[in-house]
Amino acid sequence: MSDQLIIFDTTLRDGEQSPGASMTRDEKLRIARQLERMKVNVIEAGFAAASNGDFEAVRAVAEAIKDSTICSLARANENDIRRAGEAIRPAASGRIHTFIATSPIHMEKKLRMSPDQVVEQAVRAIGWAREYTGDIEFSAEDAGRSEIDFLCRIFEAVIKAGATTINVPDTVGYNVPEQFAATIRTLIERVPNSDKVVWSVHCHNDLGLAVANSLAAVRAGARQVECTVNGLGERAGNASLEEIVMAVRTRKDIFLCDTRIDTTQIVPASKLVSSITGFPVQPNKAIVGANAFAHESGIHQDGVLKHRETYEIMRAEDVGWTTNKLVMGKHSGRNAFRSRLVELGVEIKSEEQLNHAFARFKELADKKHEIFDEDLQALMSDDSSEPQEHFRLVASSFHSETGETPCARLTLSVGGKEAKVESGGSGPVDAAFKAIEAVADSGAELLLYSVNAITTGTDAQGEVTVRLSKEDRVVNGQGADTDIIVASAKAYLNALNKLHSKLERVNPQV
Amino acid sequence: MSDQLIIFDTTLRDGEQSPGASMTRDEKLRIARQLERMKVNVIEAGFAAASNGDFEAVRAVAEAIKDSTICSLARANENDIRRAGEAIRPAASGRIHTFIATSPIHMEKKLRMSPDQVVEQAVRAIGWAREYTGDIEFSAEDAGRSEIDFLCRIFEAVIKAGATTINVPDTVGYNVPEQFAATIRTLIERVPNSDKVVWSVHCHNDLGLAVANSLAAVRAGARQVECTVNGLGERAGNASLEEIVMAVRTRKDIFLCDTRIDTTQIVPASKLVSSITGFPVQPNKAIVGANAFAHESGIHQDGVLKHRETYEIMRAEDVGWTTNKLVMGKHSGRNAFRSRLVELGVEIKSEEQLNHAFARFKELADKKHEIFDEDLQALMSDDSSEPQEHFRLVASSFHSETGETPCARLTLSVGGKEAKVESGGSGPVDAAFKAIEAVADSGAELLLYSVNAITTGTDAQGEVTVRLSKEDRVVNGQGADTDIIVASAKAYLNALNKLHSKLERVNPQV
Repeated sequence: MSDQLIIFDTTLRDGEQSPGASMTRDEKLRIARQLERMKVNVIEAGFAAASNGDFEAVRAVAEAIKDSTICSLARANENDIRRAGEAIRPAASGRIHTFIATSPIHMEKKLRMSPDQVVEQAVRAIGWAREYTGDIEFSAEDAGRSEIDFLCRIFEAVIKAGATTINVPDTVGYNVPEQFAATIRTLIERVPNSDKVVWSVHCHNDLGLAVANSLAAVRAGARQVECTVNGLGERAGNASLEEIVMAVRTRKDIFLCDTRIDTTQIVPASKLVSSITGFPVQPNKAIVGANAFAHESGIHQDGVLKHRETYEIMRAEDVGWTTNKLVMGKHSGRNAFRSRLVELGVEIKSEEQLNHAFARFKELADKKHEIFDEDLQALMSDDSSEPQEHFRLVASSFHSETGETPCARLTLSVGGKEAKVESGGSGPVDAAFKAIEAVADSGAELLLYSVNAITTGTDAQGEVTVRLSKEDRVVNGQGADTDIIVASAKAYLNALNKLHSKLERVNPQV
Repeated sequence: MSDQLIIFDTTLRDGEQSPGASMTRDEKLRIARQLERMKVNVIEAGFAAASNGDFEAVRAVAEAIKDSTICSLARANENDIRRAGEAIRPAASGRIHTFIATSPIHMEKKLRMSPDQVVEQAVRAIGWAREYTGDIEFSAEDAGRSEIDFLCRIFEAVIKAGATTINVPDTVGYNVPEQFAATIRTLIERVPNSDKVVWSVHCHNDLGLAVANSLAAVRAGARQVECTVNGLGERAGNASLEEIVMAVRTRKDIFLCDTRIDTTQIVPASKLVSSITGFPVQPNKAIVGANAFAHESGIHQDGVLKHRETYEIMRAEDVGWTTNKLVMGKHSGRNAFRSRLVELGVEIKSEEQLNHAFARFKELADKKHEIFDEDLQALMSDDSSEPQEHFRLVASSFHSETGETPCARLTLSVGGKEAKVESGGSGPVDAAFKAIEAVADSGAELLLYSVNAITTGTDAQGEVTVRLSKEDRVVNGQGADTDIIVASAKAYLNALNKLHSKLERVNPQV
């Protein structure tokens, strides 16, 4: 059995399906570059047939990334597979990942197909995929609740048809490790030619067992794990990439395999995904939580001092925890700024965009003494040069005083025209949102409002996330500024711009 | 084997040891009442010997709680055990939990004791504990890295001496499920009289496997799991109570046991602990994350509509997810207010405190249309009637405008005397903090600043958490207000008050 464990990252596909985590093409590209830097083997860049936007995003990632295989998901039908095949065409190495449900309940209630029809459809799907690539992954949706005999039958058929990776998802997160491992072991034993393919697992975290189920499967012979940065994904998410990678590396004695991941890129990847999606990482999250390597207890600290190994099984620096690096200040020049952005994986599309960003950097440096990598990331996330910007904040003034109604006065640009507006509210943020709505009249509902300081210190920038919902669509807006009220107004406008762009899509479920 | 799984909650002990999660006596009482309402079997209320404050907190919980066993941790020495015994004396049912390290590395490097000495000390500890209670738990610290022969020897000795629960911790989170289960199975087989005690596990989450290791141990015969709400705890935390409870309940077919937990109290407990500690719960956290029961994908929604069971293995209402209940408005009376507080488990100490809180409620109702349970919780958390309040916000005024330096003017009460102060800053929050520091001159470092809207809607209250560090002490301050800048100032002052109270403590490590 191979001692290489393939890491298949689906942050850009299953992760993006988290309610409120949808990303723009540029955001996906930035994450893809970080995944490549981390040496992820396979990047599932999206579901090309979902929408034109998804197709373009997969294609853009396929064009940009050289060192990881780029994959698109596709239902087992001709249109989905051809869209996936076209989208991955520019990739140095491209994969099509096709799936169909195999559990009795799904075949009957959702697909309304007989088991024979499902096998036929799966085999046809592999045939279409072979017109585009020799690297074909097949998933049996809801395998965790499928009958083992039927799984053996469909896997035998798709391997014969040319599938090279067989993925066994626990779609609803219902499995427990021992039992899931037994399923994988049985499949590898019973399916003819099982040694000619890579066995893969895709676990959901509804009972908190996604990582444990994936690792149990690795012990049983699986050699690909599908996972996401920060365990992002629908509902309770997928297996966390960082936990899988570090468990396997720390316990090589048990797992007898390893990944090619550059673990020092784990924390930067976690921060990037958290900042783009607006999903915070809880302090007590394994590996990437702020407290994961922090030691409080007196007894414990004493132990650490006496002998480091007494309490440490991993080193913080091995997963990329470093103290914030002071990179820039108000005297930093344009070239230093540009090269730092390149190091951070931020794409600079034109000299004009660079000039615009540099002007904003100088503005920030006037307000804030020390500029960290995180500030630069926020500056670029918040880049106002994006073309689809319908609403924009031009100027603002806020006043609040004990005993009086807080008040916001805004100058907004709406479709290029300036509008002045004023409103009171229960606080200055409420006043700002009410002033914006007095102009925009969006009818959207505010689902979430959260603020994180990007760096420590009282002059930190605040990064605000605003989640709006309207007619079944949920969008996240982000805004960063040293003034939290300004950051809030920017985040609200960013969310309105996303609602305004009317992206339509469907999401698959694996 | 018993079909009852005992849930031992250590949110108030191991959870509180998370850097920045320390709680006041009143906060501990509120959490303990919620744990009792959830029907937790054993509440580890603290480590009585750590400080006078810890002793008082354990004693207060022991006095207040009737339906759960109250436990104090104690190192295996006479002083610790006598302090624990005194602290739990008022409890309807009290337990002493004593521990000593058993791994070669800990015995040699930390304890500097021989294995023989460790066994002797453990047996003596059980003897002291028996003077106070018949319910005695013994933990072998770092059992996960201890030699199995030595574990058998020490467990045999403490069972003979009178221990009734034997706890096997994986202190550094190094174990994987299969292996950890094998350890538990071996111990139960080999230790004489193992059927006379309850076998317990305490797992840490450094590799993301705390829940999986605990559940594997349950399959191997453990009948107590030590866990915390939201998986709080040192570093990456402990096993999550909610994941353990729901995995066992959802998969009774596999685990062959169940807990007595009222699962509808899980989400309220999660929200309470998150609000008191200021530790956010990430949206993709299993069971208690905001997205845990949210379904985004089109295909998936279609499946749900066609047949609910296709994607749901648990029901959101079974774990306490309900829509926010509108409980109060500006016309609600004092009696309705009091009875709602009682239902929420908030202790009302005096008529004066009630009057004070009611006045603040009326003030809030003027600013905010709908008052939810979460608002009342925040109102009470933020109760300014606490006696140790050295710094207090009397009045404030803030102004910010594009192109100008944001400015804060505050009136503070410092030790009963009023002080007026004014400062600029990089934003209004920074200006407020600088104004406060101009008076307080604390020298504390700001480690974290975060804001969460307590309820949805633009007129939501903002709840701000400020984490300050000074000379190795870390404290959290909270403040709530519909004006985010006012909430920030209150949170900063709350943290300064905690630093001012100079609580000293040491924390044990199990």
